[in-house]
Amino acid sequence: MKGNVIVGQSGGPTAAINSSLAGVYRTAIDRGAKKVYGMIHGIQGLLQERYLDLSQYITNDLDTELLKRTPAAFLGSCRYKLPEIHEDMEVYKKIFAILDKLEIEAFIYIGGNDSMDTIKKLSDYAIITGHPARFIGCPKTIDNDLALTDHTPGYGSAAKYIGTSVKEIIRDGYCLEYENGVVTIVEIMGRNAGWLTGAAALAKGEDCDGPDMIYLPEIPFDLEKFTQRVKKLLQKKSSVVIAVSEGIRLKDGRYVCELGDSIDFVDAFGHKQLSGTAGYLSSFIAGETGSKTRAIELSTLQRSASHLASRVDILEAYQVGGAAVKAADEGDSGKMVVLVRHSDDPYQSGTEVKDVHKIANDEKLVPREWVTKDGTYVTDEFINYVRPLIQGDVSPVMVDGIPRHLYRPLNL
Amino acid sequence: MKGNVIVGQSGGPTAAINSSLAGVYRTAIDRGAKKVYGMIHGIQGLLQERYLDLSQYITNDLDTELLKRTPAAFLGSCRYKLPEIHEDMEVYKKIFAILDKLEIEAFIYIGGNDSMDTIKKLSDYAIITGHPARFIGCPKTIDNDLALTDHTPGYGSAAKYIGTSVKEIIRDGYCLEYENGVVTIVEIMGRNAGWLTGAAALAKGEDCDGPDMIYLPEIPFDLEKFTQRVKKLLQKKSSVVIAVSEGIRLKDGRYVCELGDSIDFVDAFGHKQLSGTAGYLSSFIAGETGSKTRAIELSTLQRSASHLASRVDILEAYQVGGAAVKAADEGDSGKMVVLVRHSDDPYQSGTEVKDVHKIANDEKLVPREWVTKDGTYVTDEFINYVRPLIQGDVSPVMVDGIPRHLYRPLNL
Repeated sequence: MKGNVIVGQSGGPTAAINSSLAGVYRTAIDRGAKKVYGMIHGIQGLLQERYLDLSQYITNDLDTELLKRTPAAFLGSCRYKLPEIHEDMEVYKKIFAILDKLEIEAFIYIGGNDSMDTIKKLSDYAIITGHPARFIGCPKTIDNDLALTDHTPGYGSAAKYIGTSVKEIIRDGYCLEYENGVVTIVEIMGRNAGWLTGAAALAKGEDCDGPDMIYLPEIPFDLEKFTQRVKKLLQKKSSVVIAVSEGIRLKDGRYVCELGDSIDFVDAFGHKQLSGTAGYLSSFIAGETGSKTRAIELSTLQRSASHLASRVDILEAYQVGGAAVKAADEGDSGKMVVLVRHSDDPYQSGTEVKDVHKIANDEKLVPREWVTKDGTYVTDEFINYVRPLIQGDVSPVMVDGIPRHLYRPLNL
Repeated sequence: MKGNVIVGQSGGPTAAINSSLAGVYRTAIDRGAKKVYGMIHGIQGLLQERYLDLSQYITNDLDTELLKRTPAAFLGSCRYKLPEIHEDMEVYKKIFAILDKLEIEAFIYIGGNDSMDTIKKLSDYAIITGHPARFIGCPKTIDNDLALTDHTPGYGSAAKYIGTSVKEIIRDGYCLEYENGVVTIVEIMGRNAGWLTGAAALAKGEDCDGPDMIYLPEIPFDLEKFTQRVKKLLQKKSSVVIAVSEGIRLKDGRYVCELGDSIDFVDAFGHKQLSGTAGYLSSFIAGETGSKTRAIELSTLQRSASHLASRVDILEAYQVGGAAVKAADEGDSGKMVVLVRHSDDPYQSGTEVKDVHKIANDEKLVPREWVTKDGTYVTDEFINYVRPLIQGDVSPVMVDGIPRHLYRPLNL
């Protein structure tokens, strides 16, 4: 390449998004880019002309390795959605003026659905105006809900963390005996898609029964049947562990986490603080069974736990970043890099590029046939799908007992 | 030794308690014990004659290694406190009859304060009745609140998990920008002692500012000053992360987690479900500042995260188990093994045995001078104390992407 590259990160944090950033940087340098700029806080920051020169932060190969092991978004992220071109042309003129000033040849955006929408609009605008810059998207989301790609970078590491943590929680649950048993409800991210919650099944193995039930948001939740099942399990087991998605809903569409509404706290700004799905269910089950109950939210830990990242995930994230630069350099635009699975066992994958118009704003859910008939567990197909994505480790670079990350001063 | 050994585990789960169990088993076998029995669910299970022969589960050196990497209590645990000898002699007669039946020469109990109380009473009873069995305690608690020992096995691994997770949470917090900033409150275990909460300071390093404030239960909590400090921090930083102990209390003695009382849920059994310290504070701060707030409870994950155990901790736990058997074999009774720190830098430690009468029921708190004057952080002395305890890793034995544990069938 002859010009410069600019790269941005968008949407929620993951353990793998910085590995894609590392892949973009290395491939761009290898292919001759003069400068690789990073947008600070995505397209929103770029509109404020906030950007940096990545070569000031990635000065050697060790920095690259540290960047791969740094969670969240090294450049900072945003949740900004571009207006339609006909609604506000000024925004586009501003962005392209900045790109021209920086002599940008390739614009790479790492993110989820909203980010692919950004790529689509910018690439459309470039085509309309005859601008030569190329725009390529890199998939990224722990939610794994992007269409057309077999899976998304970030998902494998989150799944590995969830499987491992749920297994440790199961061991913990058997430690102490309670008169009426103990019920642990683990709340896992995923408002609409159950990919993360289903990964709790990875805890199951020769040395562990796995969680007793798994409830995905794709299946309507029946509180009465749920309670009956918990009571039945408590007759057989002293400790019951259940994984639930934060987004499970009743048949009538109400979120389970809304059921505790009357008891929730409304602050001075009128924000309602929900008790959480696991919090509500554990209170409810305590009342119904007299068991000791525990609510555990894996919370942000599940998306930023680089210390337990999956090697497959981190390497694929890196490849996807490199493939995006290659595609732009070869003239592609308005495309997203996707991961294609060539084989399950042995697992083999590769990258392709697909038209971003076909991807943007579509949400991929867990297929109904990958959930058991009674809706309380995932099937072997689900496990066979996710298992290869959690393989291998990326040893953290430990300094004085704590993982080292790549640092940049904040509030630039 | 000529007779048999019996070992039990008591109190809350940790990542290191099974390493002490492995140490007890190996040293007992090496010193010639014929059988090493394990009490199932501690002294409470023993009273129901529930025990197992450990050689059926630890069949080779790999099993020993897996046991060291298995969280919670392999044998099952209990929270049973023995009655005073004069109150209920029958309990003692029953226990000693079982010990005689099993030809027990050494009785090792791994646990916290309550467990040392058990050792004290059983050893007193043996002395009174002239029984030859020896009773030795092994310290164990993530809380690090046992007297006379420099620190307790289990603490170092929990501290490593807390330091690492808080660092990942700090990275996560800087990812997205919010108009009024984002405040994350991380709730950490420790009802009375702040050893675990103080370990959040381990996140601080060349590449990370660490948490902005740390509140230990030893220091009375002032909600108004707290709010002022958060507001001041928000003027300088877009993301503020605060570590609080679950046990922080106001000057008048009320727990902070009780302040949300009016909004908490009371179930059909009359159990009150508290909103939690972090939950209450994050709602309160949202109301006061208009910031986005997040409450994260590290919950049971911090005590059972074997996948991120500290090597120093796991090795010391193993040594302590072995030293307990050695002490009993050499004729000691009514003693607890303690860890003695010979040097901070380089860190060097060893074991000694101390009279359990001096230990039982004492609670070791963080010294006032290890907390800053304004009570919002720990000092360098605190960090120098804990830093050596989190050094080194114990690589999990990964099978198909998930850590392997040593398995035993449950509900025996």
